[in-house]
Amino acid sequence: MEQFLENAKSASRVLATMSGSERNRILREMAQALRNNTTNIIAANTIDMQIALDTNLSSSLKERLMLDAKRIDNMAVAIEEIAALKDPVGRVIEGWVTDANLKIEKVSIPIGVVGIIYESRPNVTSDTAALCFKSSNGCVLKGGKEAEHSNNAIAQVLQNVLTDNALPKELIALLPDSSREGVAKLIRMDKYVDLIVPRGGEALIQFVSQNASVPVVKHDKGLCHTYIDKDANINNAIAIALNAKVQRPGVCNAMETLLIDAAIASDILPKLKEAFDEAKTQLKGCEKTQSFIHVALASDDDFNTEYLANILNIKIVEGVMSAIEHIVRFGSGHSEAIITENISAAEQFLNSIDAACVYVNASTRFTDGGAFGFGAEVGISTNKLHARGPMGVEGLTTYKYKIYGQGQIR
Amino acid sequence: MEQFLENAKSASRVLATMSGSERNRILREMAQALRNNTTNIIAANTIDMQIALDTNLSSSLKERLMLDAKRIDNMAVAIEEIAALKDPVGRVIEGWVTDANLKIEKVSIPIGVVGIIYESRPNVTSDTAALCFKSSNGCVLKGGKEAEHSNNAIAQVLQNVLTDNALPKELIALLPDSSREGVAKLIRMDKYVDLIVPRGGEALIQFVSQNASVPVVKHDKGLCHTYIDKDANINNAIAIALNAKVQRPGVCNAMETLLIDAAIASDILPKLKEAFDEAKTQLKGCEKTQSFIHVALASDDDFNTEYLANILNIKIVEGVMSAIEHIVRFGSGHSEAIITENISAAEQFLNSIDAACVYVNASTRFTDGGAFGFGAEVGISTNKLHARGPMGVEGLTTYKYKIYGQGQIR
Repeated sequence: MEQFLENAKSASRVLATMSGSERNRILREMAQALRNNTTNIIAANTIDMQIALDTNLSSSLKERLMLDAKRIDNMAVAIEEIAALKDPVGRVIEGWVTDANLKIEKVSIPIGVVGIIYESRPNVTSDTAALCFKSSNGCVLKGGKEAEHSNNAIAQVLQNVLTDNALPKELIALLPDSSREGVAKLIRMDKYVDLIVPRGGEALIQFVSQNASVPVVKHDKGLCHTYIDKDANINNAIAIALNAKVQRPGVCNAMETLLIDAAIASDILPKLKEAFDEAKTQLKGCEKTQSFIHVALASDDDFNTEYLANILNIKIVEGVMSAIEHIVRFGSGHSEAIITENISAAEQFLNSIDAACVYVNASTRFTDGGAFGFGAEVGISTNKLHARGPMGVEGLTTYKYKIYGQGQIR
Repeated sequence: MEQFLENAKSASRVLATMSGSERNRILREMAQALRNNTTNIIAANTIDMQIALDTNLSSSLKERLMLDAKRIDNMAVAIEEIAALKDPVGRVIEGWVTDANLKIEKVSIPIGVVGIIYESRPNVTSDTAALCFKSSNGCVLKGGKEAEHSNNAIAQVLQNVLTDNALPKELIALLPDSSREGVAKLIRMDKYVDLIVPRGGEALIQFVSQNASVPVVKHDKGLCHTYIDKDANINNAIAIALNAKVQRPGVCNAMETLLIDAAIASDILPKLKEAFDEAKTQLKGCEKTQSFIHVALASDDDFNTEYLANILNIKIVEGVMSAIEHIVRFGSGHSEAIITENISAAEQFLNSIDAACVYVNASTRFTDGGAFGFGAEVGISTNKLHARGPMGVEGLTTYKYKIYGQGQIR
């Protein structure tokens, strides 16, 4: 394992001197190579799907695992979109001249080697490999066991393009030992690995955060709230609340708890109940909510739960300050929204809530790399430092200072 | 301890709604309060100095520990300079409009509660407290045992200013249990502490890095190189090499190893020897160096040592690529310099070396917050992520996305 990671690290240095246009040309070759190898990739995926059938994998996992020609073409298109992004490396972030007449440039550079740990969807293999290559990083990928054959086939195609271009195939490496022990080793190899991005269940993220000596950017829990203020446009409020909950309940930017200003509770609650009943959402509510509509009681445990399902807590609060207090207590710092036409309430909410993304009059579902205009994403960071929120190619860079003197000493 | 840190965390939220001019006014009051309490602070420092005498503290540590009216005035001036800096919080770092017509602003915000662990110099207490207050962060300070009375007196003065302004004194908190166990607890309290900055010896930094669950920005080893290229201006080269080593050998941005292009070794080595002999520098060299000047042999262990003393390794290399290879192997990613008039050599060095600060024709001694124009500094980060190099108030901020919609759903 150590030798393998050392190779990945030295391979990553090759990218430092390669031009952006060269990297983009190779990315476009990778996209084409995926299309050309559609049959091989589907053959490998068929093996994974057969094992999934034999081992009674859930239908939702099988749905995520399955590849067909259309999905493989989508993977190719994603790589082409990444190739079309502006070069994230070599950007002068800031520049100035000091008192001693030194010219300082703060310049974006790759991080080095990025380890990405993820679950069933095989397209994550090509997406993250392409994001890392675009940003001149080597990557070590550790996909889900259930997608092993698919991931191997995809990585093989991308590695062949590297080899055809006289580049080391270790730039896009699959972790050789994909057991829990393999992961445990990987996250302690700070000599060779510069960043770990775990995407997956809470157990994985806990394990990685508690045991890594490599810096970690977590793609963790999204316990998102929407607060409907007394000065909300009621039609907007209902549409946004419904969208935030039901459009795709299983994702981290979906709403789990709806906060409602007491001043408009009697007016809006029946309308919300009608909308959510139609969407087959299971509603829970605080005691005050129960005095307006017929729902089960929501406990503090419920307010602390990321359902990732079509279930919603409702709580009545006394104005924006009280909404903020609830979010400080239960929020996970991911995405929070206020619905209001009142500029003071909006400003107070925007300034007081400490989350990666704070919305006024829009659905929390917009928290992702695509919607932000970042192209694909490595994940949605719930870290407070380095990258926060949707993490695109810019999140895969760090910086150095280049300092130009003419003989200065102190 | 948990209650104490919970209080620090809620205190830090108070700062979110305070204006920058208000924070600056309070900082100027703190500066004045330090001057007004010169007698008290010196009295406390006298106790520490007496204990230092009784416990045979080294003279260099005593020199760092000692406070007099002039040093206290310098601390006050530093706070006034920090007050005069541009507000690091609330800055719009980027802003754009998405395809869905959402207006996104990426805005700088405080990190929250910052824990700073440091050693003997008591001025670090007021410097870091002021930097944290300026950037709207709460801080938990853990100074050296040997400076305990001085640090208590300084913190007390600053806390009194907070109380006079109806602010919670927990915004500038001293860690109540300053034992190793106290530190061990602090660095696992990720619920209340958002960042730990350890400044100090390798043992402390190792301990913190290996055991923290709170994110860490290390102020770690500086194993800095200067490479004299064949196309160097020889006078510049000698002046810069001398300055980088001898102006203050005990600091992290001082040079430890001098790399010399073989093409100019016979010309420059005798001149360098003369200059370093005059500065009483102890020289070690590779075998090739020994064929030109009389020096002890430098081993790989020497090339791996941060001397923090007036000792220098010299190595002869075959051009810029060979210099880069040596630095990749032995450098600590802090500060590296090339001396050359050749633009291609300079560019190759600047682009290939992965360090926080890479210099052309200047001394590595410029790597600090003051020289960079950042005002005071929390430390010099040897992390690759979050803050890199001199870490001023901007390094004490993170960001959030504020997203303005008009009812958008997905």
